[in-house]
Formats: sequence, C-alpha cells, structure tokens
Amino acid sequence: MNLTEAYAAYLPAVEAEMRSLLSAGDPALTRHYALMQYHMGWLDANLAPANAPSGKRVRPMLCLLACAAAGGDPRRALPAAAGLELLHNFSLIHDDIEDNSLTRRHRPTVWALFGLPLACNAGDAMFSLAHLAFFRLPAHDVLAESALRALQVFDETCTALTEGQFLDMSFETRVDVTVDEYFAMIAGKTGALLGAAPEIGALLAGAPPEIAAAYRRFGRALGRAFQLQDDVLGIWGDETLTGKSAASDILSKKKSLPVVYALSGETAGPELQRLYAGPAFGAPDVPVVLGLLERAGAQAYVETCVGDALHEARQALASVEARVGPAAQFPLYELLAALLGRRS
Amino acid sequence: MNLTEAYAAYLPAVEAEMRSLLSAGDPALTRHYALMQYHMGWLDANLAPANAPSGKRVRPMLCLLACAAAGGDPRRALPAAAGLELLHNFSLIHDDIEDNSLTRRHRPTVWALFGLPLACNAGDAMFSLAHLAFFRLPAHDVLAESALRALQVFDETCTALTEGQFLDMSFETRVDVTVDEYFAMIAGKTGALLGAAPEIGALLAGAPPEIAAAYRRFGRALGRAFQLQDDVLGIWGDETLTGKSAASDILSKKKSLPVVYALSGETAGPELQRLYAGPAFGAPDVPVVLGLLERAGAQAYVETCVGDALHEARQALASVEARVGPAAQFPLYELLAALLGRRS
Repeated sequence: MNLTEAYAAYLPAVEAEMRSLLSAGDPALTRHYALMQYHMGWLDANLAPANAPSGKRVRPMLCLLACAAAGGDPRRALPAAAGLELLHNFSLIHDDIEDNSLTRRHRPTVWALFGLPLACNAGDAMFSLAHLAFFRLPAHDVLAESALRALQVFDETCTALTEGQFLDMSFETRVDVTVDEYFAMIAGKTGALLGAAPEIGALLAGAPPEIAAAYRRFGRALGRAFQLQDDVLGIWGDETLTGKSAASDILSKKKSLPVVYALSGETAGPELQRLYAGPAFGAPDVPVVLGLLERAGAQAYVETCVGDALHEARQALASVEARVGPAAQFPLYELLAALLGRRS
Repeated sequence: MNLTEAYAAYLPAVEAEMRSLLSAGDPALTRHYALMQYHMGWLDANLAPANAPSGKRVRPMLCLLACAAAGGDPRRALPAAAGLELLHNFSLIHDDIEDNSLTRRHRPTVWALFGLPLACNAGDAMFSLAHLAFFRLPAHDVLAESALRALQVFDETCTALTEGQFLDMSFETRVDVTVDEYFAMIAGKTGALLGAAPEIGALLAGAPPEIAAAYRRFGRALGRAFQLQDDVLGIWGDETLTGKSAASDILSKKKSLPVVYALSGETAGPELQRLYAGPAFGAPDVPVVLGLLERAGAQAYVETCVGDALHEARQALASVEARVGPAAQFPLYELLAALLGRRS
C-alpha cells in the first residue's frame, strides 16, 4: 500500500470516528458541539454543513501507518488516531485565543466568531473528548495495559504541548532567546505530538518498547524538520504559494529559528536585538532584517538543521527496518517526503 | 475515624501528591508552574511561598472516604484524589476567564494577575497534569483495568463539566430557562465531579459496580444540595458571613434556581422576565426582585429541593449500609452535614 492508497483506505474511518466523538447527545448542547464541528471544517459560519479545509490529518495517519508497519491491524488504532487529531485541534482553538489570531485556514477562528468564553470552553470540551476516544480501544481488542500505556503517552504529550506553548509565549518579549531554548520550545509544541502519534500506533500493534521508541524518534525528528521548514517559508517563502504575505514572520517579529540564530550570533546579533527590542516593524524594516539574516547566514544554518532532522527521521526508520521489513515502512518514508517537499 | 481525624490523616498526603504533580522539571518552566501554584494558594502574587485559602478539598476527601468505606486502603486512591482536586481547580481557572471574574477567594484570579494567554494555557496544563495523576495508580497496586475504568469516569466527568459550563453561559442571555434546564446545568457543572469523586474511590477499593453507583448517586445528590444552598445564600445569605454583598446574585442577574423558578411561574414570571430582559440592575431593583421572589414562593421551593437532595444523598448511603457496615460510612454522613450546615 502506498501513501495515496493509505489515505483513501483510512481517512474516511478517521473522520467518522471523530464525528461520532463530537456529536451532541442532548439537543440543548447542539450549539456547544457546533463550535467544535465548525472548527473541524464540518460546518460553516452559519452552522450549515460544510466541507472546509481542515488540515492534512498528519497525526492520525502517522499513528495508523506506524501501527500497520509494526505488524498491527490499523483499524485497532482508529480511536487513538481520532483522539490524536482532536488533541491537535483543541490546541489550535486555544492557541488562537492566546495568540489573538483572527483567522485560520482562511476562516474566522472559533473565538473570533463565537466569542472567547464559549470558544475557550469548546476547546476544553474537545480536549476531554480526545481522551474519551481511548476508552473505545478495549472494544477494538486492545488490552487494558496497552490502552493505559497509550493514554499515558497521550497525557504526557498534552503536558509537553502546554510547556511548549508557554515557552513560545515567553519568547515574545525577549531578544535573548537561545537556539537551545528554541529547540526545547518546538520539541514541546510540535515534536511531542508528532512523536506520540506513531509511538501510540506501534504500542497498539503490540510492538516491543524499542520499536515504539524508534517511531517516537521518527515522529519527533519529522516534526522538527517540518517546523524548521515552516520557519524558512515564513521568511523566504513564495507568497503566491504560501498564501501568507512575504516575510510575514518578520513583520510579526516571530522568534523563529532564523531570527533566534541571528539574534544570538556575533555578526548581526547586536543590531538585530536593537531592532527586535524596538517598536513594531513596518514594510521598510523587512529588507533591513533580511540583510542582517543574510549576513548571519541564518537561512543556510536552518536548512542544515532541516537536513539533520530529516536524516535523523530516516535513521529512526532504518534502525527497525530489519525487524519490521522494508516494505512495511514505505508509506512512512512517503509521508516524510510529502511533508518536507512542500513549498507552501 | 471521624471526619476531623480523616482530614488530619489524609489532607497532608493529598497536598503532597498535588505539589509533586505541579512542579517544574526544567527551570525554564518555573513561571508556567508558578501560575498553577499561585492558583492553589501555595504562592502569593509575587510568587513567594504562601498559605492562602484554597478551598475545602471536598472532592479528594469524598474519594478517599468512599474508598475507605468500601473496604479499600485510601492510600491506594491518593493519586486519583489529587487528580480530582486538580481537575476542579483547572475548571476554576478557566471559569474565571470565561466569566470575566477578577477575584477568587479574596485574591486576583490567575488571568487578572498574569494575563489571559498564560492563564488559559496554565489551565490546560493543570487539566493534563490532573490526568497524569492516574498513571501513578499502578505503583499503588491498582490493576490496569481499574485504573482505566477510573480514568474513563474521570474523562466523562470532564466532558460533563464543559457541557454544564456551556449551559450556564447560554442561560445568561435568556429569560426562558426552565427548572429542568437548570437541573441539567448543575448536574454537569457541580454534580458530575462530586459524583465521580466517591465513585472513583469505591472503584479503586475494588468495590462491585452497584456500590460504586450508590456512591456516585450520593456525590451527585450532595452536589445538588450544595449548589442549591449556595443559590439560597447568594440571595438571602448574611453578607457578614458569606463575604459577598447581600443579594449579589440578584445584582449580577444570575440565573440561579430561585430566579429560574420564579421566572417560569405564573405569579411573578411575566414581571420578572421584563426586569431580567431589561438593563442592568442597581440597588433599587433589589427589593423589587426580592418581593417578586417572595410572591412566587421561590425560597420555600428551593429549600424543599435542598431537603429532597439531602434525602437522596442519605438514601444512597443507606442503600449500601448493609454491605459496607454502618461505621464505615460515618465520615461521609459527617461531610454531608458539615457542607450543608454552612451559613456562608
């Protein structure tokens, strides 16, 4: 099975699992659940059925593909795959509140449309419902020990997400963020969940701990590569492809890796620190900052880090190839290539 | 063991368990965890050690007392007791954001002191950490099946909390809330967690399902009685005892049961609906509303409901008395009496 076939085979079942988790039992709660359904792209702003863009469902695919690669029946991991995607979406609903973001995927964010109190509570609800997914596992012939272990990985991931989000917010007011601090932040905010997804898939296949650990390393490295590529695109991406304005991360003074690297270097650090500590940027600042990043060699540095992360991800798969067989991991390599080959 | 002895025996261990859950591993996260420690009363507004009032810890006590009554060793249930109290406190941090509340227990709320973004994220963190408590159960000789079952009850409770909070917020803009809707709201917002606490305690004692169910009924009825008594105090309470201004629930137009009952009745309903749909209340409105509630017999109605709930709570305990022995439940009766005898 290749990646396209895997998407075709698994995605409808993941969507159905999520829809059954996010449905109101009581008509009095229809609106409460509708906020979550809106966020997922299933309803439009008038709460009529819709089919809005809702992300690539990378986390459930990682979970199911790792389960299959480790020799399990991916149907067994379906509830966990749905729970992982709901956890990701809960974090987006709250991040949008915390970052004051008005749009996501070209639509108003939940809080912008329905107000902060209901949106905050809808995020909490999605967080709870993401957990409830795991209690469906015993009906899929998963032993209590395995379900409990999967849930523990899941909740350690939730904790890491909040820690990463704290670090990210704490960077906003600082110009002395180090490269190590940056990597700790994305390890929590992006890496933890992308690592947990294939780890949980392997655990639910009944794989031994060293295989589950290899898949966790794979997912975390994939997450790092993905985030760093996103950082590059946020500064040097082609706006006709990314859909964001060019250099949007400069205008917002985002502490992405190119900026953190240059801020902490000798070449351009002092001048950049002065600029980043000063008033908000306008269009004329962009070429100045771009010049300083160029002088610091920031893009080349980050591209090297992307290469290192990709190498680590492939190494993690290679380390268990003799045990699971080379064909089993093919769609995981494909997913890595598909995510990292993007230009937007 | 009586209730005072039980508090003395268990409370320090519950506090220690919560403190160990809410501690930063990495110094970079000190401030993130400090927000949670502030909320718990362990730090003051300058983040120096403190011992501020932090609630009666009713939920962990219900859990441990039910575990003991059902024949278990309450030490076994300690992590769950800590998790239940953390869940309650997570919900308070987010409720304060959603309700725009500036003070709680005579101190600034977390969001008022540290800003909404960090506070929202600290609430999410406490939610995750509340879950992590349960993965300590296997080290306390709890079987995976029992730990998983306890966690399921816990996550169903989380979901019910968010549903109750949604209903509560949706009532704010309505004057046609029914008594049934009101009871559904408090069942989610107050009853679910107070029911889950002794239910989980009984489950962790290895009690059969019918005993766990009786303790859930007990906790839910206790929660209903407690909430309704709170509603009475919010209107007719003695402000020197409650610490709130007299009739504070009238001035805030809160849809507590006395108001919902009178709004939906024939005697005072139409006039009250007009007032509650109109502009914000000032001091001169208070006697008018009090007169209408009096005419509707609202206080007598709610006092009757409190009595019914108390009766149901005692019945639930009585229903299993022959199985667990009369002495075992004595502190649970005491806790009920202590909570419901309050005047503030």
